[in-house]
Amino acid sequence: MKNIIVGLLGFGNVGSGFAAILKENMNQITNTLGCSIIIKKVLVRNLAKYKNAPIPEELFTTNADEIITDPEIDIVVELIGGIRPAYDYIKKALEHHKHVVTANKAVIALYGRELFDLADKSCVSIKFEGSVGGGIPIIATLTKSLAANKIEEIVGIINGTTNYILTRMEESGMNFEDALSEAQAKGFAEANPTSDIEGEDAAYKLAILTHVAFGVEVSPGEIPYIGIRQISEKEIAYAKQLGYKIKLLATVRRNNGSLDIHVHPTLVPFEHPLASVNYENNALYIKGSAVGELMLYGKGAGSLPTGSAVISDVMEAAGIIQNRIQTKNSFASRYQFTPKAISSGASAYYIRLQVTDQPGVLGSITTAFGRNGVSLESVVQRGRGGSSVPLIFVTHETPWDKLEAALEEIKKLNSVEEVASILMVHKQSQ
Amino acid sequence: MKNIIVGLLGFGNVGSGFAAILKENMNQITNTLGCSIIIKKVLVRNLAKYKNAPIPEELFTTNADEIITDPEIDIVVELIGGIRPAYDYIKKALEHHKHVVTANKAVIALYGRELFDLADKSCVSIKFEGSVGGGIPIIATLTKSLAANKIEEIVGIINGTTNYILTRMEESGMNFEDALSEAQAKGFAEANPTSDIEGEDAAYKLAILTHVAFGVEVSPGEIPYIGIRQISEKEIAYAKQLGYKIKLLATVRRNNGSLDIHVHPTLVPFEHPLASVNYENNALYIKGSAVGELMLYGKGAGSLPTGSAVISDVMEAAGIIQNRIQTKNSFASRYQFTPKAISSGASAYYIRLQVTDQPGVLGSITTAFGRNGVSLESVVQRGRGGSSVPLIFVTHETPWDKLEAALEEIKKLNSVEEVASILMVHKQSQ
Repeated sequence: MKNIIVGLLGFGNVGSGFAAILKENMNQITNTLGCSIIIKKVLVRNLAKYKNAPIPEELFTTNADEIITDPEIDIVVELIGGIRPAYDYIKKALEHHKHVVTANKAVIALYGRELFDLADKSCVSIKFEGSVGGGIPIIATLTKSLAANKIEEIVGIINGTTNYILTRMEESGMNFEDALSEAQAKGFAEANPTSDIEGEDAAYKLAILTHVAFGVEVSPGEIPYIGIRQISEKEIAYAKQLGYKIKLLATVRRNNGSLDIHVHPTLVPFEHPLASVNYENNALYIKGSAVGELMLYGKGAGSLPTGSAVISDVMEAAGIIQNRIQTKNSFASRYQFTPKAISSGASAYYIRLQVTDQPGVLGSITTAFGRNGVSLESVVQRGRGGSSVPLIFVTHETPWDKLEAALEEIKKLNSVEEVASILMVHKQSQ
Repeated sequence: MKNIIVGLLGFGNVGSGFAAILKENMNQITNTLGCSIIIKKVLVRNLAKYKNAPIPEELFTTNADEIITDPEIDIVVELIGGIRPAYDYIKKALEHHKHVVTANKAVIALYGRELFDLADKSCVSIKFEGSVGGGIPIIATLTKSLAANKIEEIVGIINGTTNYILTRMEESGMNFEDALSEAQAKGFAEANPTSDIEGEDAAYKLAILTHVAFGVEVSPGEIPYIGIRQISEKEIAYAKQLGYKIKLLATVRRNNGSLDIHVHPTLVPFEHPLASVNYENNALYIKGSAVGELMLYGKGAGSLPTGSAVISDVMEAAGIIQNRIQTKNSFASRYQFTPKAISSGASAYYIRLQVTDQPGVLGSITTAFGRNGVSLESVVQRGRGGSSVPLIFVTHETPWDKLEAALEEIKKLNSVEEVASILMVHKQSQ
């Protein structure tokens, strides 16, 4: 069998991990595939930086076309990240009938449909296992292992930075800023952590999962997301007393012909498997019509875990090439599910109010909830007699508009100083 | 594209689940594959029982050859279970160049190598995702998503019956017999639960995982296994006080050129993801050289979850048929790892002694541990002044022979009434 020739775009964190794994496991890969995978060229910006790289100096180039248009190259592996020029390179590579493997969440979330269609037109494949959940085989599981399931729901911890911060706040009582600094010092948060902290990164990944699992294209911008910047160590302690951890959950679920989809800090009961996903780890909780509940857990980022996912994609593309398989990349035709609307759906909520501790306050608040059709599961009052005491409510499942109406009324009560916190509560499904 | 014709051997729990999922998701399956999957014949023992089955009566037959030798049938799906006649049918089907999908752990554990080689010779594929972990995509993950990883370790909760029993004992304080009865009443334990309870079922599945992940054939009979019958509710309570849950773990790991492999009741720290795997759920914890730690969690048995795995295999085989792919089923050639020996390896241990509470007893026991090179992490004495009190030791990692020598010495001490319990302790890897 002919060897498979690969061109690499980018030699940063994931690119160098990819090359290292390939070298380390060459025998195993060759034995499995029946052919070798050979890196022919690597695109970088500055050749001088790669004088002592672990691969031969002459492989590096600064000219993308040397890779994208080289007739000998079978697979283009895009590991530059960011939208441009990555998107242009991928597009051009597909047009030149290269198979493409990428770990680029932004490009797939924003341009996935267009690129899948283009790949189909060019009779090549585009693979992106590394774009969500690092080394966790989420795309393979959704598209192959669960191919005969109707996916009902995916709930994921898909941002390692925020999960690291929330874990450290919870276990040490430190505040958000200190936990963020620690995460940055340890390499789990970037110098500019905004996209991670605000939930935007998770929204991108959730857009990809939604496309793959439901065949529905949502742009990341359509997904309501709230990050964790406003989560205080006090909130985490309150949640803990009630038996919950606070996690940043990315959720997409079917709801009567529409899709509920959002990224939101959420209380997860201690006993739920997602509650034990700590530090920088990621996890995907999937509910399928046949398989029931399934969870995949692992490192959601990093040179070697993501490199592992990228190589599994390259090996799959190699099999497609060797066997001349006609692939179909588009997801839209698989599921034929047209959601009525993207909604934020119903949820149970955790509401913390700061109130003046005076007789009758609880009665007027619970009356306002009841009048708006919000049913309460529990009420906890922490502290007594201060001028401002916290009152914590956990609701039963409630549509957002009802809760909003109730809170509008509650805000107007004299004794209510502040609606200090609104978080979702993840109910254990049975 | 031509449709894929399937013959089903067996229409019990999994077989009927398979048919139901196929019917329910026919559109999605057809859209994904580009062809339909059609059940042509179903082998059963007693036709009379299937008068009102959800598939047409005329599909049922009592003659296996009508399926195995039918030239029109592409894939034989074996869901009878047990060793004979399942093994004979599978063999004959492969000889007749049928692709085979099975969920039969016994046949794959005992005859896997022979059948993989036979399939290779016949240029067909044999798939067995459903044989371990029900709907959890463990075989796909090991063989494909982690294809570029050297697997270092697999630690699994792969028997739902024992996990259900241990969970119920832990949460309610009930004893083993009551928990077993409850599991039987709820359908989580068979009328004859011996194979599950004693750890044999887990040993079969572990043999399959070892073959797939390391290319090493071990017969289930070579795997040391200990079940949970001797685990008392008291032991579970002691372990809980120390911060552990007791789980029946199936473990295989590399250890200096040999493989440590065993099924053993083990203390798992609360914070470890395996500790939150409760009731009848299964989980596989995998350590790969590139991916790091990965865990897959889900329903390890049942009509629909296992049926889901079986259909994913059938869909993969359908792709192989449609694209005329040359498959390679054998695992031996992939990894080229020849273990020096199957060893039970080193572990941390939990030892409970019942001793007479008298001065000096602790000193003579710890001296005996030390003299034999067993280093202790903690000692806890529960209760005081009774004639028989428990002394609980947790050791650091210790080779079994050293622990054994120490316990021989300790048993001879006058004040030691009994070595009441020896369990393994799973250390959180870093």
